[in-house]
This record gives sequence, C-alpha cells and structure tokens, in this order.
Amino acid sequence: MSLKLYVDRLSQPSRALLIFCKLNGIEFEEVNIELSKGQHRTPEYQEVNIMKQVPAIVHGDFKLFESHAILRYLASAFPEVADHWYPSDVKKRASVECVLDWHHANLRRGSAGYVFNSVLAPAFGLPLNPQAAAEGKKLLSASLATIDTYWLQKDGRFLLGNSQPSLADLSLVCEIMQLEFLNEEDRGSIFSPHKNVLKWIDDVKSATTPYFDEMHATLFKVKEVTKQRAAGPSS
Amino acid sequence: MSLKLYVDRLSQPSRALLIFCKLNGIEFEEVNIELSKGQHRTPEYQEVNIMKQVPAIVHGDFKLFESHAILRYLASAFPEVADHWYPSDVKKRASVECVLDWHHANLRRGSAGYVFNSVLAPAFGLPLNPQAAAEGKKLLSASLATIDTYWLQKDGRFLLGNSQPSLADLSLVCEIMQLEFLNEEDRGSIFSPHKNVLKWIDDVKSATTPYFDEMHATLFKVKEVTKQRAAGPSS
Repeated sequence: MSLKLYVDRLSQPSRALLIFCKLNGIEFEEVNIELSKGQHRTPEYQEVNIMKQVPAIVHGDFKLFESHAILRYLASAFPEVADHWYPSDVKKRASVECVLDWHHANLRRGSAGYVFNSVLAPAFGLPLNPQAAAEGKKLLSASLATIDTYWLQKDGRFLLGNSQPSLADLSLVCEIMQLEFLNEEDRGSIFSPHKNVLKWIDDVKSATTPYFDEMHATLFKVKEVTKQRAAGPSS
Repeated sequence: MSLKLYVDRLSQPSRALLIFCKLNGIEFEEVNIELSKGQHRTPEYQEVNIMKQVPAIVHGDFKLFESHAILRYLASAFPEVADHWYPSDVKKRASVECVLDWHHANLRRGSAGYVFNSVLAPAFGLPLNPQAAAEGKKLLSASLATIDTYWLQKDGRFLLGNSQPSLADLSLVCEIMQLEFLNEEDRGSIFSPHKNVLKWIDDVKSATTPYFDEMHATLFKVKEVTKQRAAGPSS
C-alpha cells in the first residue's frame, strides 16, 4: 500500500514525520508542498487536506492530517517501528500522550507564535506583530523551563526519564529547531538558562542521525540566505 | 486499584472526564479543586499536578494530567469501556486522534480564549481583554464552521460520520458548553450559522444522559447567579 507524505521541510512537524519514517525504514513518497509559494492553498491540495496545512498523508485510500495523529498512526500500522517510539505499555504510552498533548498549548504555541511574528511573517506577506511575538516568547521560555526542570528531571537522556526517544522527543525537538530562524544573540539568551534542554537536543540529534541533519538541511540553507540578505550586498 | 479524579465541574475537560467515567461504570473518587478559590495553586495539589491545572488523576501510584491523555488512558486501561469511545481499529482510532489534536489549536483555543477574556477573567482577579476576546471569537466561529461542514458532513449523528460517540465528541461538546457563560444574544449569534452543530450537541447530550446534565448542573447554577448579579437587586 503506497504511502505519500505531503510536507514542507521548513515546517517543523513535517520534519519530525520525515525523520520518523526514514529512521524506521517506512517507505514513502515525499510530495513537496511549499508553504511560502501558497501550494497548500490550491484546490488539488485541499483534496488531500481540507485544513490547508502540512504535513498530511495518504496511505492507500486513507487520508490523515495533524502530525501527532499521523505519527501515532504510523507507529501503530507499521510493525517494524520499535516500541520505544510509542510504547505498548498502557502507562508508558499515557505519559508520552501527556507530553504530546501538553506540547500543543505550550511549546508549540510559544515557539511558532514567536518565530512567525518576529521573523517569518513577511515571507508570507504579513507584517511582523511585536505584541504577539512578545506573548509567544514568554510562553516559549516558560515551556523550555518546564522541559528543563520537569520533563527532563529523571535519570534517562530523553523526556520522561526514558533511555530511548519517543514520538514526543522527536516532535518537540523539531519544533525547537525552528528557533534557528532567530539571530544568534536572541537564540543564545533564550537557551542559556536551560542547559538540560541543550544536552537533550544533542541527544535527540545523535539518536536520529543521519536523518536529523538531512531533514534540517533546507532550514539551514534558508537561514543562511536570510542572513546574507539581512547583511546587504558584500563590498 | 483506587482512582482519584481531581476536577472542577466548571472546567470543561473535567466534565468530559467525569461523564466518561460515569457512563462507563468506572469507579472513582471525585476530589474537587476549585479554580476560582486558587485550590490548584496549593503545594498539596502541585504534588498531584505540577502544571497546576485540572483535570488530573491518580490511579494507584500512577499520576497523569492533560485531559485527552487521561481519556485515552482510561479507555485503554478499563476493559469495560465500549470500543466506539476509542476504536481499536488503527484507521478509525487515527481519525479520532486527528479530531482530538485539531481541537487544541482550534475550538479549544478559540472557545476558552473568548469566554475567559470576555466574561470569566474578573472571577480570577484579571481584567477583561477585548482584543484577546475578539481573536478568540474569530477562531471559535471558524472552528464551529469546520465542525458543521467538515467533521459532521457524513451520514452518522456523530463526528467523523460515526453512529456512536467517541472521546472527540465528548471533549468538544463539553468545551462548547462553556459558551453557556455568554449572554443569550451573543450565544445565539455564534451558533445560528451552524445548525449541524446544534443537532450534534443534542445528540451527544442524549447519548450521555443522565450524566451530561448531572455534570453540567454546577455550570448552570453559576450561570444563573452571575445573571442575577448582572441584573442587580430586584425592585
């Protein structure tokens, strides 16, 4: 049964999905939907996902969107996926679900709100919004503090004290990578109080190598171009 | 193994959890945590849920928060829960997960943002926030339109065209009931374009009787008191 992933590698949940499939040997066709070109708003794409967002999948004749729902589905439908990603033990799974749900109204909302309203909005034809950016930054910092002191408080290298990553580690770290769009100073000041978070990001990168870097290459390329443009023409 | 539910019946996800347990014959002890009295901020309650939110559960020695994670856990841990609440079929379950995840950044964010910032904030010692209320109302209306024309577009009485309710129906309708705090005119104008939503609310009420009304009695009582206070002393 064919699996198509409709993604934009500049979208954080798209990258989480791509890395997950690559790591677990799930075969797929990548269909690129460039958000900055409005390709998510075409009538053709609305046949795939009426919400006009990426990622979405079509598996045989089954359509699905919402990245956490997709990750859970793939972890359940493909027996080759290792148990640590989405544990079959009821309590361990419930704890992973708790992080995934917490993510929506906390890290995701804070990070996406801050990066979009302080940097990315003009690329989508919208003005920067300092007030929304400030609210996003506040929530982002509080969320990073929660990860640093609560979700990572136990012995293991990953969230919930686990020794191997779950869907939650992958989803949250891909979100945090969006902060690469910020300037060095800003990113440094956001991360500096959260040493456990920095170590955990490295641990998730190591555990998902080489796909983590492969799926983030576009982000680093766009970041470089943006930086050069901001610096103006070289003399 | 004892199950304790830490809830406030004025909190929409608390009500969803209470109704779910009652309907499915899951025995529990209800521990009332009154948000308006700040009982979620006590050191004792932080031992239960460090996030200072309701609902949370303690099942034996297992602690869990985030209402969707709790509902999934109970549906998985208690074999007496009927399959339609959280289908074991991988694709049917994925579709329910899709609605549950969609809820966070759409209906939940819109409804909670609107009701809190236009009505409830003063009860928590905070000022009303007209701008946040306006943003919430916009997202709330868009979310109701999505439910009306997309999630309810198929033959069945419930979300996704199902003939019986799932966790998603219960979570979303309990959220919508929070709109009872609005005045009649405002609520009427919000609901009027969405006839399918109104019929679906009634269908969820019927499917969860008598517990739906029982768990919403406190909300209607508080609403009545608020209305009388707003009207001032009678002549």
